Amino acid sequence: MALETPNHTQTVAGWAAYDSSGKIAPYIFKRRENGVNDVTIQVMYCGICHTDLHHVKDDWGITMYPVVPGHEITGVITKVGSNVKNFKLGDRVGVGCLAASCLECEFCKNSQENYCDQIQFTYNGIFWDGSITYGGYSEMLVADHRYVVHVPDNLPMDAAAPLLCAGITVFSPMKDCQLLESPGKKVGIVGLGGLVTVISTSPSKENEAKQRLGADYFLVSTDAKQMQRGKRTLDVILDTVSAKHSLGPILELLKVNGTLVVVGAPDRPIELPSFPLIFGKRAVKGSMTGGMKETQEMMDVCGKHNITCDVELIKPDKINQALDRLARNDVRYRFVIDIAGTSKL
Amino acid sequence: MALETPNHTQTVAGWAAYDSSGKIAPYIFKRRENGVNDVTIQVMYCGICHTDLHHVKDDWGITMYPVVPGHEITGVITKVGSNVKNFKLGDRVGVGCLAASCLECEFCKNSQENYCDQIQFTYNGIFWDGSITYGGYSEMLVADHRYVVHVPDNLPMDAAAPLLCAGITVFSPMKDCQLLESPGKKVGIVGLGGLVTVISTSPSKENEAKQRLGADYFLVSTDAKQMQRGKRTLDVILDTVSAKHSLGPILELLKVNGTLVVVGAPDRPIELPSFPLIFGKRAVKGSMTGGMKETQEMMDVCGKHNITCDVELIKPDKINQALDRLARNDVRYRFVIDIAGTSKL
Repeated sequence: MALETPNHTQTVAGWAAYDSSGKIAPYIFKRRENGVNDVTIQVMYCGICHTDLHHVKDDWGITMYPVVPGHEITGVITKVGSNVKNFKLGDRVGVGCLAASCLECEFCKNSQENYCDQIQFTYNGIFWDGSITYGGYSEMLVADHRYVVHVPDNLPMDAAAPLLCAGITVFSPMKDCQLLESPGKKVGIVGLGGLVTVISTSPSKENEAKQRLGADYFLVSTDAKQMQRGKRTLDVILDTVSAKHSLGPILELLKVNGTLVVVGAPDRPIELPSFPLIFGKRAVKGSMTGGMKETQEMMDVCGKHNITCDVELIKPDKINQALDRLARNDVRYRFVIDIAGTSKL
Repeated sequence: MALETPNHTQTVAGWAAYDSSGKIAPYIFKRRENGVNDVTIQVMYCGICHTDLHHVKDDWGITMYPVVPGHEITGVITKVGSNVKNFKLGDRVGVGCLAASCLECEFCKNSQENYCDQIQFTYNGIFWDGSITYGGYSEMLVADHRYVVHVPDNLPMDAAAPLLCAGITVFSPMKDCQLLESPGKKVGIVGLGGLVTVISTSPSKENEAKQRLGADYFLVSTDAKQMQRGKRTLDVILDTVSAKHSLGPILELLKVNGTLVVVGAPDRPIELPSFPLIFGKRAVKGSMTGGMKETQEMMDVCGKHNITCDVELIKPDKINQALDRLARNDVRYRFVIDIAGTSKL
């Protein structure tokens, strides 16, 4: 795809997939100059999200190769555009899924940029200038300041990186379902991945979930007896699983009028059986990342309570192995690439 | 299945399916004596619901044969139990989907009996005494008065019959979505069946939908251009279609945060694509019939505004033909069986 990229003069070293084999290799490419609304960020860490896996393998049929994945980015500001007032040189910042939106619609005006219908993503998107966006598997990033958040001082930059996608993806529906102000609500999380869980296909995760991650209950979704006992017990379930799975037994865990929030994006349609939906007046609701205001709010809440992610740090030359292990569900709980080489691996 | 039916001494003539061929034939069976909480109803009319079709053919794998279908029943009270205060001999009444519930849980206490987890249906259910329930394709019915509603005087008994299932099934989610008190909300209905619609696979229904049934817009769901123009325009969609269909294009019609209410019950899982769900923060919510209080409320609203259903009356010996035509989507818009033979067919 030949796009006009007039001021894309900055040479950057990164890592890209070149075709649907999904194999990652070094890639030298250009980024735009730092515009008046932009900040330039020296990337320190970048999480590996399941979305990256879908993109490098073109599971969704929308990948523009070469694709530089990565939308869980932390780093330090090295340049600041003249219109930018809320960031300065040296600031510790994060960039998540969003690179651009229309800035004018009801959603943008209400900091729900994530639901703007002109939304463009941090990678494999088309920026305002017509250029293809490249993500955080790279040493440097130019980002419009309206899609950048501050990382609280007490949070380590590596373990904070997954907050930019996994974190806000879970925080946003929890806030939307009034869980933050309703401590009595009973919540289930399907998939012990980026954050925490109770409902899992892996019995081996039970001890860790309960003892170290603070889950109250642990349900093995393949255990019919456990699932039967759990019927009609939960108010809200967050389903974070991107792999194909049936929602029937999971819906049965919800109380009448309960909500299952889908935040994963399987490449095939979800099988939604109508009976547990109808008989329980239950809802299956989608949620996609979060707006910038609530992304900063999530960061601040994590800073206040010292919440970060369990991560496994890797060097850039291990990205392919990490993606393979992610595809096999072999990660606890998030790979983070040490882009700047600042940690002792 | 041999169940104890000690006081089932009343002989009733009806119509039943005997096996999964779904063929309906006359059937003589027993009903219980009129208990202290019961009313006995001389059945006048019974609508033919798509659920009847699923049951006679055992699509859901739960049919107990012989099955006497029918849960859109209107008739006149001929006996009243000693505990019954709100009905008297000669009252024009209706019976819908519900035959029994626990009467004690939070849902029963709040007249949301339809979500009680001990719910039993008007046919193919197990009543409190252990007997199998038989529906309205029969000349007489004994019903607990707590699951009976009054039919307003001005409503004709034939065209009122479908209100007992189709009517309340649509009324309940409309009320739940605050549509009754919010006239500005934009609503779509998928499937021009029991009530009214805008979204249909049948272009031939457009004139009738707009001119006679009062729909504001009509979208042909197989017309990609129409569906594209309709994106993000509706607040709520009621999906009344029991046949298998994909929700993707229909979800795209919803605004951000919009709700699609599923009231049909296809025998296979619905294909729910995650992208339109997630990108639009949309919800797919189930709704099953309604509670008794709101069923009476729906009846009263219909009485006040003279709302009934477009029906095609048939004699009992035409039930098989009607079911065949229903399976082919060839009915405008509801078959109603003239059980008592009171109309001039």
